[in-house]
Order: sequence, then C-alpha cells, then structure tokens
Amino acid sequence: MTEVIATYLVHSIDDNFEKKAEGIALGLTVGSWTDLPQLEQQQLKKHKGRVVSIENVGSSGSRMKGIIRIAYPAANYSPDLPAILTTAFGKLSLDGEIKLVDLEFSPELTAHFSGPKFGTEGIRQLTGVQGRPFVMSIFKGILGKDLNFLLTQLEHQARGGVDFVKDDEILFENVLTPFEQRIVRGREVLEHVFSETGHRTRYAVNLTGRTFDLRDKARRATELGADMLLFNVYAYGLDTLQSLAEDPEIAITIMAHPAVSGAFTPSRKYGLSNQLALGKLLRLAGADFSLFPSPYGSVALEKGETLQIADALQAPGLLKTTLPVPSAGIHPGMVPQLIEDFGINSVINAGGGVHGHPAGSAAGGKAFRQAVDATLSRKTLSEAAQTNTELQQALELWGDKVR
Amino acid sequence: MTEVIATYLVHSIDDNFEKKAEGIALGLTVGSWTDLPQLEQQQLKKHKGRVVSIENVGSSGSRMKGIIRIAYPAANYSPDLPAILTTAFGKLSLDGEIKLVDLEFSPELTAHFSGPKFGTEGIRQLTGVQGRPFVMSIFKGILGKDLNFLLTQLEHQARGGVDFVKDDEILFENVLTPFEQRIVRGREVLEHVFSETGHRTRYAVNLTGRTFDLRDKARRATELGADMLLFNVYAYGLDTLQSLAEDPEIAITIMAHPAVSGAFTPSRKYGLSNQLALGKLLRLAGADFSLFPSPYGSVALEKGETLQIADALQAPGLLKTTLPVPSAGIHPGMVPQLIEDFGINSVINAGGGVHGHPAGSAAGGKAFRQAVDATLSRKTLSEAAQTNTELQQALELWGDKVR
Ligand SMILES: [Mg+2]
Ligand SMILES: [Mg+2]
Repeated sequence: MTEVIATYLVHSIDDNFEKKAEGIALGLTVGSWTDLPQLEQQQLKKHKGRVVSIENVGSSGSRMKGIIRIAYPAANYSPDLPAILTTAFGKLSLDGEIKLVDLEFSPELTAHFSGPKFGTEGIRQLTGVQGRPFVMSIFKGILGKDLNFLLTQLEHQARGGVDFVKDDEILFENVLTPFEQRIVRGREVLEHVFSETGHRTRYAVNLTGRTFDLRDKARRATELGADMLLFNVYAYGLDTLQSLAEDPEIAITIMAHPAVSGAFTPSRKYGLSNQLALGKLLRLAGADFSLFPSPYGSVALEKGETLQIADALQAPGLLKTTLPVPSAGIHPGMVPQLIEDFGINSVINAGGGVHGHPAGSAAGGKAFRQAVDATLSRKTLSEAAQTNTELQQALELWGDKVR
Repeated sequence: MTEVIATYLVHSIDDNFEKKAEGIALGLTVGSWTDLPQLEQQQLKKHKGRVVSIENVGSSGSRMKGIIRIAYPAANYSPDLPAILTTAFGKLSLDGEIKLVDLEFSPELTAHFSGPKFGTEGIRQLTGVQGRPFVMSIFKGILGKDLNFLLTQLEHQARGGVDFVKDDEILFENVLTPFEQRIVRGREVLEHVFSETGHRTRYAVNLTGRTFDLRDKARRATELGADMLLFNVYAYGLDTLQSLAEDPEIAITIMAHPAVSGAFTPSRKYGLSNQLALGKLLRLAGADFSLFPSPYGSVALEKGETLQIADALQAPGLLKTTLPVPSAGIHPGMVPQLIEDFGINSVINAGGGVHGHPAGSAAGGKAFRQAVDATLSRKTLSEAAQTNTELQQALELWGDKVR
C-alpha cells in the first residue's frame, strides 16, 4: 500500500483512544464511513484512513497517554511534504494535546523524494576524509564586522585543520560581508591555506533572502565556487530545502540549521518530535548535514533524543544518509564521548571550543584534530596531550570530561 | 530606530530575568559587549540588541514567569520574515522555556511589507457586500468524489446565498477534481447561479503543490478566472505567502488556513502566540483572510486569544486589514454572539452548520444569511424565525445558544 503511517502521542483525560483514533482516521480522510451506502464505501475505500495500532502507554499527571498510528493512503495527497504534513498534522495539530512523533513513508512514496544529493559517502568522496568524524568550526562575532575580519577568522580556522567552517545562521545579506564576496574571497583564502598546508577547509555560506530568490542565489553560489550552503530550513519550509537539494545546478552540499525548530519540538504534548523534525524529514528533504543541539551543552537535548535524530539521519534506507552535527558546548575533551555516542559518520562542531583556545582559533582546531586522532588510535587524551601541545592546552582549560 | 521589538514569555526556576534578557540581547546580536575595546563598541553600536523591558509576572507551578522585551536593530537582518524570525527566535527557540509572544515592527521596517493586497475594504468593493459580516461555507466530504459531486455541492452552497465557499484544505492536486477544472467549471456553476439568483458566490480554491511552482500556478489560477486562493501557509512558510500576495499577476484574494500551526501555538511555554502566528504575521505577509479556531467549537481556542487574533488582523495600522474567519463549531444560532465578538468585519464560516441543515446545504446558507439580517436589524433570532423557515429549522436543530 502506498501510504504514510503517522504515529501520534496523545494526552487525554480518558483512555478512549480507540474513539480518538477512529475519529482521526475518518475525519482526516473520507469524513464518515459506517453510515455510507455500500456503493459509496466501494468508491471511497482507497481514500479511507486506517487505524494501524493503539497503545495505552501509562499516564502523566491527570492525563492518560496513548500512542496512535494512522495510515493515510497516498491517493489522498500529492507526494510532497506540505501536502503530507497538512494531511497528517494540519487541522489535527489544532485538536488538543497531540504530538506527531513519526511518519513512516512506504517505499513507493519514498521514491518521490531524492534525499541528500551527496550524503555521507558523497561527502567522504568529495573531501577525501575517510575513517574519522569530520571537524567543523563556526564563525564567532561576525555581525557588524567587515570582510577582512571575516576572512582573517576564516584563515585561522582553516589553519587549524578543520574540515568545514560555517557561517553564523544570523548572518544575512549585508553590506559589510555580502554573500558573493564571502564566497569568492573566502575561496581565495582557503585555496591559499591549502597551497601552504595541503589541507582543504570548506566553507558553508548562509543562504538567505526571499524564498523565490533562493534557487537562483544558490545556483549563483555554485557558479562562484561555493563549497556548501547553510540553510535555516524552518524559517522557510521543508519543501524549499527539497527543491534546492533536487536542483542539478545547485551542485554543492546543504547543511540544515535547526533555527526556529524549538518553536515546535520541545513540548511533550504538542508539535513534532526532534527525531522527525531534525532527523527523518531533513533527510527526506535532502539535507546533507543536520545540526541539532548536542546533549552536552547549555542549549541541550536529552541524549536519547539526539541519538534518535542521528539514527534517523544515518539508518540504512532508500535514501542517502545525512551527517549528524551535534552542536553547542563542545570542547576537545569531549571528543571520545562524541565518537562513542555518534560514531565516525558525524561532524564534531565547535564555536567557543575552537575560538576560546588559549593559543587562538588555529590551535583550537588542531586540538580537536589531535583529540580525534588520539581517540581513533585508542589513546587516552591525556596520553596524546603529552606530545600535542594544543590538545594539552585545551585539556588544561576545559578538562577531559563532558561538562 | 528601525528595529523589531520581540516580546518573550519566559518560564524559569529563578527570577533572574535581567541576566536572561541581557544574554539574549547580546547573544543574538554582537555576542559580547562590556569587555570590548571602546573602538569596537563604537563600530558595533548600531548592531547591538537592547533590553527594552523586563517584567516579573508571577509564577506557574515551580516556575517564575517573566515578560522580556528585546529590540533587534534592522542593521542585523534583511527585511524579510525568515531573517527576522531567525534573528528573534532562531537559536533562542531551542534555549529552554521561552515563547515568542509578539513582534513589533517599527514603521520603517513595516514599509518593507505590503500586507494584504485587497484587505477588508478591497474585499467589500470587490464583492459589493457592505454593512454585514460575510458568510462562508466549506466543502464537505469531497475526498474521493468526482467533479460533478463537487460542482453540485458548490451549486447548493451558492444557492444558499453564502459569499464564499472554500475548498477543504486537505484537497490536493488529484485526478478526480483537478485544480484547473475546479476553477473553470466552478466558475461556470457560480455564473449560472448568479444569472438565476442575482447573488454571486466566490470560490476559494486550494493552492497546493511544490513551493517553486506555486507562483505560476497562482498566476494561472488568476488567468482562468479563480476568485480566491486558499493556502496552507504553515505547511510552506510565511515568506512564500508574502511573495504570492506581492505578485501583481496574482490579482485575487488569499485566504490563509491555520493547518499545522497547532504544532507551535498551543503550549504555554514554547512556540509562538496565536495572536502572532494567526494574526499579525499573516497580515504582514499579506493574507486577505485568516482562518483560526473559533472559541465555540470542539477544536477551540480560548475566547481571549481569538479576540487578540482578530484585533491583530483588524487594528488600524500601516497595512490593509485582514478579515478574521473564526471557524469550527458554528451554527446559525451563534450568529448574534459571533457579531458581538468579532464585529461585522469578519467572516461567519460553517461546515456542518450549513451541510447539516435539515433541508440541505442551500437552506443552511439561507439560515445563516437570515440570522445575520435579523441580528443587524436588532431582532432576536426567534422573532426572525417566525418569518424565515430555514432559520427556524436551524434553531430547532441546533438551538440559539453558543454550544
Ligand atoms: Mg549561531
Ligand atoms: Mg477541513
């Protein structure tokens, strides 16, 4: 059956989840059923929603909790995310304490989505980085600063040996550091560092502006030699990301930023699960990378949730995989834990943990790379620090423990 | 000062809202301040966020509640909603228990938004309907039905004298009732009813599909003679609505549907206020109509919230006004209450309250029109029912009370 199965967490004062489930399955599809004439039932059969399962999962305060799964036939919607979200969680999102926990797309439906253009393997081929997690750093304090400031910061980060540097998500089109200048001049800086060090760092430039201009702007970025795009997908819409990812003329990777997603993920009773919002849906829509709050920092998710996100991004499936980028609160001392939690198919991403290094941003990047090398060669960080000054300085400042 | 002032509701275990507010004002703009050299402070001054006010507003359970207002200078973002939302509630949405309650746009910033193309006055001119609320009805049970079924239902609704009929928001592109056919054949039906009754009903057709196709599809709809567009704005993005509203070749009204908005409005601790999501932001982005849950039905909002939405849509200001469409659970007996609550610059919208009328959908529409006329001529509904059969039948079925 070509369908999507939606899983909902429902909080209710009673535990009549059967009635609730039937109401959803009919109310969001054919409207009514048992009182329809036989002929009409025949005609509407392939449009009728189906209750897949109902599970009573205990209580929370005065509320009973249930998990309800409903199948929506693909005959009811066009195979795009706005139609599927409107079907499964349009009006229903307004109907009391209900949270959309998962969407399972049947293979025929998944085939309408092309997913990440590069994916983990494509990014490994592109970069030549094998057998280790990627390392990324973030620009810091760029707002109001000029292009030279930005380029100098980019150079310092590149000299530290990070694989990627990303724009701040709040850096928009502006006169001091215009989009095209960041791409062209940034590329020059990174080529220069490459010619000197043999290490190539790639720069994710923030794609911003009006929705209907984004495609041309992203194509232009590709032409100008941009390496990657950063995209605040939830300030726009999943379908916009999908169109950018599908466009053959936008031949570069796309990194999805979780900005604004906290509006609809943290409540236990409402909204979407993180696994769906920052995991499965971003992979379906074609993000090559997904940033999400790490379980370690001050802006944190529960570890279980971050592992679910990473699993949704990396699980074997019909689509290429998306690289998880657990972010915020990361310093070099956490690298063994990060690799244990997220594996090597992930990106270790730091802002303060790079720029706050006592010897500067380049040293910060080096400390991360040293910590990665140590972990993968089964050394403790303290051991490795004996022969790696930058890592030693980092451990002295931040320690070698999570938090 | 060209800026946007964001108002947040914060829940916190302590009441150190000053620290929180300073952290937001700096963290989401220039990063740090007091430790910056004088020269750099000079340079960054026009980018620095500003704490406008902090108010302790009591407690809720173990949490203190505060209202924090932060001004973000327009120098920090391009004048579009994705940039403004990312600035004011991008990363911050992920940072604990914080809800975005309001955004105040300075006049210079508002000038970048053209708002509704028609607005309340434009819709009155277009329709010739003056001095009364509009009446709308909704298709019912269309999924899986063919075009003749749809057209017959459209005709019945039009014969009842409703001003507008809207598609179901879950009706997407489909083989039985294709978009263009609904427009062209629907128009024929409505012309026919007009030629017989002298009353013109307008049809809001659901604009769906891939984001980057919407503009051409909406232009095509205009060419084909569509009256209005229904749009699931939150399945796409506010900026997409804005581009459609701004397009001079899309010369018809746009009705925003609240589908999916329940993912980020109902929590007291997270997300956006309804006033913002279904009120101010939709007006800014150019919706001519905004549907939202009425305070009377089973899928209901608190009355205070619905009045705030309506106020945000209708308050005098730089932009044209948007018609409020409180929806769900409406029957003719509620009309006096609806007019008392929402005034005549609103749309009375019903599904079951039209189609469930004992004498059919046309009678349902008539009962609503009769209830409106009675209320505006200061008659009670029971009085008016004495000379209006359809209203009488409606009152017998549903009563003349709210709920
Ligand atoms: Mg940032
Ligand atoms: Mg509907």
